Amino acid sequence: MNFASDNISAVHPAIMEALAAANAGAAMPYGYDAWTQEAAEALRALFETRAEVFFVATGTAANALALSAMTPPYGGVLAHEEAHVNTDECGAPELFTGGAKIIPLPGDGGRIAPEQLAARLAGFVHGEHQVKPAALSITNATEYGQVYTPDEVAALSGLAHEAGMGVHMDGARFANAVAHLGCAPAEVTWKAGVDALSFGATKNGAMGVEAVIFFNRDLAGDFLYRRKRAGQLLSKGRFPAAQMLAYVKDGLWLEMAGRANAAAEKLAAGLAETPGARLAFQPQANEVFVWLPRGMHEALQAAGAVYYPWRESRDEVMARLVTSFATQEAEVSRFLELAAKAARAA
Amino acid sequence: MNFASDNISAVHPAIMEALAAANAGAAMPYGYDAWTQEAAEALRALFETRAEVFFVATGTAANALALSAMTPPYGGVLAHEEAHVNTDECGAPELFTGGAKIIPLPGDGGRIAPEQLAARLAGFVHGEHQVKPAALSITNATEYGQVYTPDEVAALSGLAHEAGMGVHMDGARFANAVAHLGCAPAEVTWKAGVDALSFGATKNGAMGVEAVIFFNRDLAGDFLYRRKRAGQLLSKGRFPAAQMLAYVKDGLWLEMAGRANAAAEKLAAGLAETPGARLAFQPQANEVFVWLPRGMHEALQAAGAVYYPWRESRDEVMARLVTSFATQEAEVSRFLELAAKAARAA
Amino acid sequence: MNFASDNISAVHPAIMEALAAANAGAAMPYGYDAWTQEAAEALRALFETRAEVFFVATGTAANALALSAMTPPYGGVLAHEEAHVNTDECGAPELFTGGAKIIPLPGDGGRIAPEQLAARLAGFVHGEHQVKPAALSITNATEYGQVYTPDEVAALSGLAHEAGMGVHMDGARFANAVAHLGCAPAEVTWKAGVDALSFGATKNGAMGVEAVIFFNRDLAGDFLYRRKRAGQLLSKGRFPAAQMLAYVKDGLWLEMAGRANAAAEKLAAGLAETPGARLAFQPQANEVFVWLPRGMHEALQAAGAVYYPWRESRDEVMARLVTSFATQEAEVSRFLELAAKAARAA
Amino acid sequence: MNFASDNISAVHPAIMEALAAANAGAAMPYGYDAWTQEAAEALRALFETRAEVFFVATGTAANALALSAMTPPYGGVLAHEEAHVNTDECGAPELFTGGAKIIPLPGDGGRIAPEQLAARLAGFVHGEHQVKPAALSITNATEYGQVYTPDEVAALSGLAHEAGMGVHMDGARFANAVAHLGCAPAEVTWKAGVDALSFGATKNGAMGVEAVIFFNRDLAGDFLYRRKRAGQLLSKGRFPAAQMLAYVKDGLWLEMAGRANAAAEKLAAGLAETPGARLAFQPQANEVFVWLPRGMHEALQAAGAVYYPWRESRDEVMARLVTSFATQEAEVSRFLELAAKAARAA
Repeated sequence: MNFASDNISAVHPAIMEALAAANAGAAMPYGYDAWTQEAAEALRALFETRAEVFFVATGTAANALALSAMTPPYGGVLAHEEAHVNTDECGAPELFTGGAKIIPLPGDGGRIAPEQLAARLAGFVHGEHQVKPAALSITNATEYGQVYTPDEVAALSGLAHEAGMGVHMDGARFANAVAHLGCAPAEVTWKAGVDALSFGATKNGAMGVEAVIFFNRDLAGDFLYRRKRAGQLLSKGRFPAAQMLAYVKDGLWLEMAGRANAAAEKLAAGLAETPGARLAFQPQANEVFVWLPRGMHEALQAAGAVYYPWRESRDEVMARLVTSFATQEAEVSRFLELAAKAARAA
Repeated sequence: MNFASDNISAVHPAIMEALAAANAGAAMPYGYDAWTQEAAEALRALFETRAEVFFVATGTAANALALSAMTPPYGGVLAHEEAHVNTDECGAPELFTGGAKIIPLPGDGGRIAPEQLAARLAGFVHGEHQVKPAALSITNATEYGQVYTPDEVAALSGLAHEAGMGVHMDGARFANAVAHLGCAPAEVTWKAGVDALSFGATKNGAMGVEAVIFFNRDLAGDFLYRRKRAGQLLSKGRFPAAQMLAYVKDGLWLEMAGRANAAAEKLAAGLAETPGARLAFQPQANEVFVWLPRGMHEALQAAGAVYYPWRESRDEVMARLVTSFATQEAEVSRFLELAAKAARAA
Repeated sequence: MNFASDNISAVHPAIMEALAAANAGAAMPYGYDAWTQEAAEALRALFETRAEVFFVATGTAANALALSAMTPPYGGVLAHEEAHVNTDECGAPELFTGGAKIIPLPGDGGRIAPEQLAARLAGFVHGEHQVKPAALSITNATEYGQVYTPDEVAALSGLAHEAGMGVHMDGARFANAVAHLGCAPAEVTWKAGVDALSFGATKNGAMGVEAVIFFNRDLAGDFLYRRKRAGQLLSKGRFPAAQMLAYVKDGLWLEMAGRANAAAEKLAAGLAETPGARLAFQPQANEVFVWLPRGMHEALQAAGAVYYPWRESRDEVMARLVTSFATQEAEVSRFLELAAKAARAA
Repeated sequence: MNFASDNISAVHPAIMEALAAANAGAAMPYGYDAWTQEAAEALRALFETRAEVFFVATGTAANALALSAMTPPYGGVLAHEEAHVNTDECGAPELFTGGAKIIPLPGDGGRIAPEQLAARLAGFVHGEHQVKPAALSITNATEYGQVYTPDEVAALSGLAHEAGMGVHMDGARFANAVAHLGCAPAEVTWKAGVDALSFGATKNGAMGVEAVIFFNRDLAGDFLYRRKRAGQLLSKGRFPAAQMLAYVKDGLWLEMAGRANAAAEKLAAGLAETPGARLAFQPQANEVFVWLPRGMHEALQAAGAVYYPWRESRDEVMARLVTSFATQEAEVSRFLELAAKAARAA
């Protein structure tokens, strides 16, 4: 019963096999290998556009580097106040942009509403005394497991582009968003105005690889330099590429995300029927946020359930439960049983 | 006959097996897994000291982050003018230190001589108008395949410490240096005054992992923050750690380096007897630098030999030939035969 | 009737005379002149402690450099959300700290309350995933012309120090705060836990000089380097120093600030009696924030009153009126007359 | 007899008068005053082109900010190894560019020769492993008091532009260069391919102001933001502007530089006839570099002559003697008499 994060999961067997298969003989380093070219092509095919594609080792690097390509050091990045780029990257965007400022916006469920964005943009009236608004970063699925639809993305992108800004999507859980939406990946990205996407794989079954995808290819001009000086040019490039190839082959990425989403749905459905438990949001991806009575929380932890308390009030704990492709039905059932038992005992 | 680099090689089978073995069930992310703890312990045992150990994805990241822990943004890093940190990292040390300046020193074979270091340090007489000398970075084995002995390291470290500076060793090919020296790893590092080591594994049989090892533990205080904001905190920490564990287990790392060094030695011995070819240096690690007559160079390339021309004169090309644990005897023999044939034809 | 800012004012004649007097013969550059030494001594005497004192050209530089001495690049600076360092310096603190993050706190009248600070500090539970809280920056007088008392400063400093953070005071209008408090400068700074002060002079009668004063001298170790690389080491050091000497001599700074405060008080008293106008805050320094009916605002502007609208609602405009030592009684009277006339017309 | 630097000099009386004249009444801050507009116009007239003009407080800031407008953080700045930007700014260019690397070039008398530049540019063959060459910075007059002619500047600029780089001229002593050349300022700047000029005034009679002049106006797009976040937006903008206006009015700047150059020439002529003394270079601006026998050096210092020893050999000291508009004939004569006396005594 480990719901601590999706990155506790192992690597999908198909991806492990791809790594083993790539481990044969010599291959030119630094991305000048066949796997890297093939994986980039596979992503272009998946997104139905001639995007520029770069692989990096972590999601934090993907986000921070993507932002650095659209934000000058005197720029501002508008993002949700609880966005990973603002709260969980220890200042990586500030480092890679050379000191840009992340400007936090409020919003329910990790979403930015167009009117919040518009209001904040209207406040940039002091010229060079303020940073220059340069990028909008939205997370899909959000940190609260909510999903922006293509229309919602387009509404935010439209405002950002009008203001001369670029649009970045943090897709650490992009697979879960697309699995929920059931749309083509293009619909919720470049067709909705996204200039650059951090396309996550690590949380969803890979060993450790993320892609920075520039739909707006003008932004990619010097990205090779940015990636290299960030220490993110992986010398044996065939291995991250082989992971990515296996990840998108035959829809494996969506199959895994679908399983994770289904597990979250099942958890949520069960908790919705558990007296005392209150869902904070209806999950749309692979995260369940649920307010638990303290007694239930303590009983669950005592029984070995692993998850992070996200917030607390006097009487309740908001638990974050993250599922993955590897989440077992038995884990979900056991968790729900324990919660039900605690509810009865209360 | 690919001698382009040591990172063209595949992953050693024992390391692939270790990755597969680690791929079982859930494990806490971000280094809070058993493999990470065990791998750090293994490195402490190897170096016979309570060092602080951190894993990162690339050698460039290892170097730049290690330097950032000992160099303020207004600091200077003294390094050989052809050191990787100065010429091949696209400014990563400048990025991670926040703008420190690398101050190049001359020296034969990629080595810094103590008198060169002393002379440069004597030039810091203008206080805050100059950067503050903060770190000495030496590469062992050097970019020219030469090896500093423990005494040589100690002489340089002594000067650096007297000047209040830290000492960093770029050990991208540390295994090759130790295999050549035949000494304990401790002898040529902390016992010789090294404060921090970039301990490379990727070029010598790993898939992609390097360790930053702080022998001077005072430097490691906030390194978790530095690594995270650099996008180098790998979420599924068991995989880099499992690589490193297998790498040092039962001396695999030295066995692999020994094989690479032997291949280089064989290449050098053969070339020394090839009329027209002139060794630039007697190789001490896994790199051979040899001046080839242009005709010989062209014949070799035409026959499919892959390597980088490092410098050129009118009549000669200095070739860099890099070997690895995976270099085949047949490749070496074939290369020497082709060179001999070209010599006869000349 | 120009209430746009305090830096619209000219230079006080005594300071102009000091500049002229300093303009005689040769003097060693870069602060190695007698004026610089004397001015530093004068500030030490004024603050009754052996502080380290450095002169810079602007308030933005003073703030950003002071913060850089207590905040690592992976650090966080807690500040009021409307603090100058957060909203009006175009990212200078981010630049000079190497990418630290300013973490905005709410608070009425530009003040941070201890409970707000404590609540935010309690949120730092994710280790290296978040920035490391490193500095608290408070502004006295605040951006809304409110003044922290020594006890209020001490309460905030206490929390910051407990959390291992340094305390910075932005004193762009420090003179106005002290003139209001009537206490010794030491009382509201180092005796209340302030580690570093940006001691402003430019807004209060100087031509262009600010001091960074480190009461905590450990922070000043390498500040000469920080200032030089920021382009803030003024070569003809006698001129900024001569300004500062004249500024504090015989209490000129407090006399000027007192005049500015009195003008603000008079404006506020008049507006309080003007039907329709509502003071946003009771002014404690040299700034009046007042909600004006739109008609009154338009009438005032049409009559030539110069000031910034700070916020707007449908029916009202919040005007910011800043006074200085050079504000004339006639300007104040004229403004109040115009407001009264507009009130009668409404 | 103080030849330590040109910034030991006081402010020219005409500039002091201009400051006093500007000190009347209120003026809008941050460059929105009439003086600033007028001074920018005056510089455009002087350079006969619609340049963008920005004032800053120091030469280091002017250089570093100008370079930041043409160099990305992963860029390289090619400069003479003894250029001020490389050796005397404590890493300011690295700070303001976000970590760019200065790549030192050799050259006699502080000059870069076209063949040296071409050779270095030819070494950029490793793509993103190296920094991207982005700017050429040349100093006129050089740190050794030598002057590039318009043709020499054009030759270097041509190479830089071919390589896609911008061209910056450090003109801390631009006045001395133009006084020597006798050409129009335009001839040796934009007509010779210079994109941005640091136009110095402080060393040549101002109190403290430098201009960054962008002849290539595309580079100036966001410079207001860069200057503000560098803490170089001087709030009472009329004062730096008034200095600059007086500086260029009626050719004052060239008159002062001419006097300084003449004093240097007289010193050099006298020393050339002093047995034992050897000029290192024939001075072309306001600096004399002369090898003095140790005994002569000691005698001069004992007699109160102030200057910096620039280099030393066993028997000689290379003295740097800097003159300014304020250098007195009597100082020069006295210095030469003392040298002659020491020569006779030897």
